[in-house]
Parts: sequence; C-alpha cells; structure tokens
Amino acid sequence: MTTNQKQPLITLTTDFGTADHYVGTMKCVIAGICPEALIVDITHEIAPADLLSAAYAVSQSAPYSPPGSIHVIVVDPGVGTPRRAIALQHNDQMFIAPDNGVLTLLMTEKKPVVRELQNKKLWLPSPSNTFHGRDLFAPAAAQLASGSVHFSSVGPLIHDCVMLPGIQPTVEYQGRWRGMALSVDRFGNVITNLPLTLASLAGQKFTLQTNAYAIQRFCVTFAAAETADPFVYAGSSGYLEIAVNQGSAADTLGINVGDPVTLDLNN
Amino acid sequence: MTTNQKQPLITLTTDFGTADHYVGTMKCVIAGICPEALIVDITHEIAPADLLSAAYAVSQSAPYSPPGSIHVIVVDPGVGTPRRAIALQHNDQMFIAPDNGVLTLLMTEKKPVVRELQNKKLWLPSPSNTFHGRDLFAPAAAQLASGSVHFSSVGPLIHDCVMLPGIQPTVEYQGRWRGMALSVDRFGNVITNLPLTLASLAGQKFTLQTNAYAIQRFCVTFAAAETADPFVYAGSSGYLEIAVNQGSAADTLGINVGDPVTLDLNN
Amino acid sequence: MTTNQKQPLITLTTDFGTADHYVGTMKCVIAGICPEALIVDITHEIAPADLLSAAYAVSQSAPYSPPGSIHVIVVDPGVGTPRRAIALQHNDQMFIAPDNGVLTLLMTEKKPVVRELQNKKLWLPSPSNTFHGRDLFAPAAAQLASGSVHFSSVGPLIHDCVMLPGIQPTVEYQGRWRGMALSVDRFGNVITNLPLTLASLAGQKFTLQTNAYAIQRFCVTFAAAETADPFVYAGSSGYLEIAVNQGSAADTLGINVGDPVTLDLNN
Repeated sequence: MTTNQKQPLITLTTDFGTADHYVGTMKCVIAGICPEALIVDITHEIAPADLLSAAYAVSQSAPYSPPGSIHVIVVDPGVGTPRRAIALQHNDQMFIAPDNGVLTLLMTEKKPVVRELQNKKLWLPSPSNTFHGRDLFAPAAAQLASGSVHFSSVGPLIHDCVMLPGIQPTVEYQGRWRGMALSVDRFGNVITNLPLTLASLAGQKFTLQTNAYAIQRFCVTFAAAETADPFVYAGSSGYLEIAVNQGSAADTLGINVGDPVTLDLNN
Repeated sequence: MTTNQKQPLITLTTDFGTADHYVGTMKCVIAGICPEALIVDITHEIAPADLLSAAYAVSQSAPYSPPGSIHVIVVDPGVGTPRRAIALQHNDQMFIAPDNGVLTLLMTEKKPVVRELQNKKLWLPSPSNTFHGRDLFAPAAAQLASGSVHFSSVGPLIHDCVMLPGIQPTVEYQGRWRGMALSVDRFGNVITNLPLTLASLAGQKFTLQTNAYAIQRFCVTFAAAETADPFVYAGSSGYLEIAVNQGSAADTLGINVGDPVTLDLNN
Repeated sequence: MTTNQKQPLITLTTDFGTADHYVGTMKCVIAGICPEALIVDITHEIAPADLLSAAYAVSQSAPYSPPGSIHVIVVDPGVGTPRRAIALQHNDQMFIAPDNGVLTLLMTEKKPVVRELQNKKLWLPSPSNTFHGRDLFAPAAAQLASGSVHFSSVGPLIHDCVMLPGIQPTVEYQGRWRGMALSVDRFGNVITNLPLTLASLAGQKFTLQTNAYAIQRFCVTFAAAETADPFVYAGSSGYLEIAVNQGSAADTLGINVGDPVTLDLNN
C-alpha cells in the first residue's frame, strides 16, 4: 500500500458539528505533522453517536478517493472507556476509527485486515479522556499519511471487531428482500441498503414497502416524476432510493434512519 | 487562458448542504485527478434550487479569485433531464454549471464564450442520473485544472444559454430604478441588485422602497446607525444594501430574495 | 519567528456563518496572494459579535498549530468605525483581529507584542467599510504567510489593547474561586474558565455552583457517568467542564456563555 504520496488525502467524518473548534483543532494537529496532506471534510453533521449514518457517508466517499487515502471517522460515544481504537486496511486505503461498528460497511472482506491502534508513538503525549479525535486519531492519520510510520506498526492484528447488526439486506423468500433505511439526505431522499444489483426495477412490477406505504412507481430522474407521489429510483449511491419530486420522501412517508423496508417482486 | 497553474484554485458552490457526503465525495474525485488543486468552498447552503442566490454568491467571490480559477456551481433541479451542462470562459477564469441561468450574473459580455460540456472523456465512466456534481462537474473541473484538457475540447460553442430574467435593474423613468433583492445574508442584511455606480446616496435625498417600507436614511457603517431604523449603505458587494443595526433588515421589513425594490432620487 | 514556511497555515475564525460567500471570498483572496498556504477553518458559527466564544475557540486550536501559523479572527461588530485592527505575536505564531478584546485569552504575556495593522500596503486597494475580513485581514495574513512582509512592518507597536473583563478566574477566599462559563459546545458540555491546574477534583470533596445548581460529582469519562446527573470532568480544553451523559448540561442547568460559576473545596 502506498502511503507516502506527495499529497496524501486525509478525510474526516465526525459528529462534532462545525460550531466548535474541535474539527479545526484536529486539522491543526494534522498540518503540524503532515503539512503536505490534503484534508477533505466528508461531513461533521452526523447526529451525535449515529454510527449508521457515519458508516454510510464514509462508504460512499471512499470509492472515489485515490489510493493511499486515509479516512478518519470520529463518532465515538465510548471515548475514554476501554473501547479499542482500530485501523482497517481496505482497497489500498486506510480507515481509522473507534471499534464500535462504524466501519462495518467497509469490512466486506471475509477476513478484514484490522489492527488495534495501540502504538502510543502515534498519539499525542498525555492524551485526554474525551477528545481522542485530536489526541489519537488525527496524529495517527497524519503520521501514516506522511509515511513516517507503516501500517504494520500501528498495533497488533485483531479479528473480533464490533460490527453493526442488520446492515446487510436479507432474503425473506424468493423475490422478497428485507432491508432498512441507511440514510436520509438533505433533500429528504431515503437511501435504502438494497443494492441496485438486486433487480432492475425499470419496467418491472414491484412493491417497495416502508412503514405504512407501498411504492410501486419507478422513475429515472427527479424531474421525470412530475407528480408529488413517492417513487423509487436507481440512486447514485448504488442503492435503491426513495424520493418525492420537489419534496421530502422522509417527511412524506415518515421514514427515519434504521426503519425497515421490504422489496417484493412477486406482485 | 492559463489553466495549468502549479496550484490551481477550484471553488464549489452547491445546494447540497454539508450534512451529507455529497460535497466531500466531489472533493475526493477532484483530489484523485488533480491533487495539487486548492479547493475552496464558497457555500453549500444555497436553498435547494435557489438559482438567484447561487448566481450572486459566485459573482461575488470570482472577482477575488486568481486568474485560472475554475468555479463549479451545482444547483441543479433538472439533473438527469436533457438540460445541458456548460462551461463559461470569463475574465481569465472558467465556470462549470448546469445550463439553467445560474451563471447569468457572470455573462456580462455581449457574446459570452460558452461551451456545452459534451466531451464524455471529462466525465466519470457510467455517470449516474442524479449526481452530476460527482460524475460530470467535479471530474471536468479537475481535468481542466490539471491542464490535461484545454477549454476548447470541452464541447461545441453554444449561443442560446438559459438566462435568469429580471436580474439587471431597469430604469422606470429619469431618476427612478426598479430592481430586486438579490440576496439576504446571515445578519439579515438585504443585498439589492442596484449597483453603487447608479448614484452616490450620501448627503442626497432619496427613497428606497421595498414592499410596504420607504427608507430615506443612508449610513456609512453599521455602528454609525445608532438607532434601530433601517438604513441604506454602500455594500461591500458593490450594490446598495439595506441593514438594521444589531438586527435583521430582512425580518424587520419582511423582504425575501427576489422581492422588488425601487430607488427614487426625485423626492 | 518563521513566517516563510513552505506551506504556512492560516486559520480562520469568524461569525460569518457558511451560508453566504463571505468566508469563501476571503479564501479566494488568500489563494491569490499565497497559494501555498493551508487554510483551516476553526469555526464560522460564532454567534454574531460573541467575542468570548471566538476568543475561546482560537485559544484552544492555536496550541496545536505549527510554529509560524497565522490565525485570523473576524468577529467585528465595530467594522468601519475607528476601532483599530491589530496583529499579535505570541508563541511563534501571529494573530490578526480587530482590537475589541477577541485576543484576550492569547495575551498571556505581561507585555504582549501587538502592532496596529496600519500599513495600507497589506490591504486590498479601496477597502470597503463593512467587509474588512476580505479587504484587510485576509490580504494581511496572506502576505505575512508568503513571507513577502515581515511582522515589524505591519504598523507601530501599541500597548493599550482592548481586553475582555472577567475572563480570568479570581480567588474569592482560600479554596474558593469565582469563574464563568467560557463556552457551550455542540453536545451541551459547559467549558468553564477554571483551569485543571487549580485542583485535582478526583476523589476530593468539592462543590461547583452554577446558577441554581450545585454539582459535587466528578467523573473521568462520559460513559463512566452512567446516570443522567450532571458531573464535572477534566476537559480536553485544559479547563473544568460540566456534562450530562447523553444529554445537554447547558440545557439541564440553564447555563449560558458568560454565566458565573464558583468552585469551593471547603465542603
């Protein structure tokens, strides 16, 4: 894995918001250690402790990042407890996060290559109990990005990471899948965890059931929807998504992140 | 035009918000193609589909950007429809956007130099129908910034761009202009489209009429206003602006973006 | 002081919000003058004219910034009035701000080295009355960062800066201190101005009094709190902080920035 690029990319995904100095301070730490790094914010508006949305945001941006990118995720309700900090190597990139399931969507290999972030040389001296983003995750990422440290010296390999349950859809029976709402975006579009590869819905009968609502309409674009009825479309996420043209599908249908959805092709 | 700077500037203006991964993913695409680019966020808090505010934000920041800058604007309610994507060359800079009027304020030449973004080599492979920011606009901007592609190979010249109506003020009669509210900023200041070059209001009688309110007071600074009465001032935007000291002029006067204003020097 | 780094760091702290173009335009100005600068946002969500929160945010991030960093703070209700603009040299870094007290927490030397930003060569030509962030502060910071200008040529030394009152805690009597709430973060944690060096509260009897509430509980981490009772902890800020596990201490206790707190070890 190439970590010593001329301008390595470090991305940040947190639930810190942007009103406080927290994210800025993490960037100051990175700039001090690896000034040549490009720092890209994925988002800092993850709802506090919403692991599912953080997992989704990182899994969407990482495939568009160059090789050698280092992704830092700090959604960490257990900060200061004995929960582990981990580093995952995946698709020629690295992911640094607390061991609380936030990397589940990225652990697609049968045996993900994960190390515990135990090497104290990667931390700031005298780390606090409450701001590991500044004291552990940022300096570790910056040192890996600068090439001064190799992934193998992060800490020991581990094989029992915490995983979020239910994040992969299941087959209920032939032609019927059970999934969930992975994310709701700014426009109120609902991203499910049902991959586009399950079935091509264009021109096919189907029912996508959410809470109390059954959707049987498929549209290629928002503008093609014309009416305000909810519809399903092939999302840029690689998943089936639900939208209302010029409105919020999440509000219209009362869907929250984590709610179940089912797709049935037998009607 | 110099596109192959050592550190080209790419600015981003969208209605994507910052809660989702969308902007971060666009930056990952850019970093993969042109890691030496400086990426500057103008704003991502444009209200969904608010073309006027996006046009205003870009037209304010571009004059302060260095030559060779590339400005990407993704406010795109028509994404996935046959609406065109365009690239404008203007003042030694480039602007990449959907063809929906969002560049109107920048097309000040009689014959703006605009090309349709048709060259599929500038796109990501297999672009989605709903996220052209990631799949078309970001990779096109990054390739233009890297110097690997020249403006002339973007696509054919076009001469029938969509323009927003009413964005230039009109003379009603001698000494009386009709304009509109171009923008309302965080502080509630209202930016009109009446340029400072129309008239110097300091020490002159005038009436600026908005909805139900007639303003006849001019102040040089906010602090000079002392009372909470609305006043007009020479904005840093180059336009007449309306403010209330330590308050919101937009709220006080009930002004929204797009509302009409008239300036009369005959009283 | 080393100002001519290969990649100097410029941080920005403002009350401009991120919905308008203001911050983006400041960055365009910097990129035009010093394209090699790294620009880091500390925050732009300071409440309009909240000098205390801005002072706190900058004082927290600066110690984690590399030598030669230049910090720009634009919280400036007096813009356009005769209030001075200043530059402070402190710990091998520079701070550029209006002279309104926003640098108080950084002026820890007996005789802080402060210059008035009088040298018009550091400004943009024809500066506006209302946007000194763009016209004075950004170009001055960029020229200092580029090494084209030395700190000594910023303007004359001054010794009568505006200072915020009450920002340092006072001893009421032996074992009892009077301080204030310096900041409230996104999670509702209250950061006091009582430094951790006053007393180690772990295993010691104490009362931290805020408004109508007396806290006598100390916890090492959020998760260790278990119940929803407010507790005091050793904050990553270097100050005593108040939290409620999985809740907002500020809301629970009705604390606002600037409210008094007292710490008493005599109970």
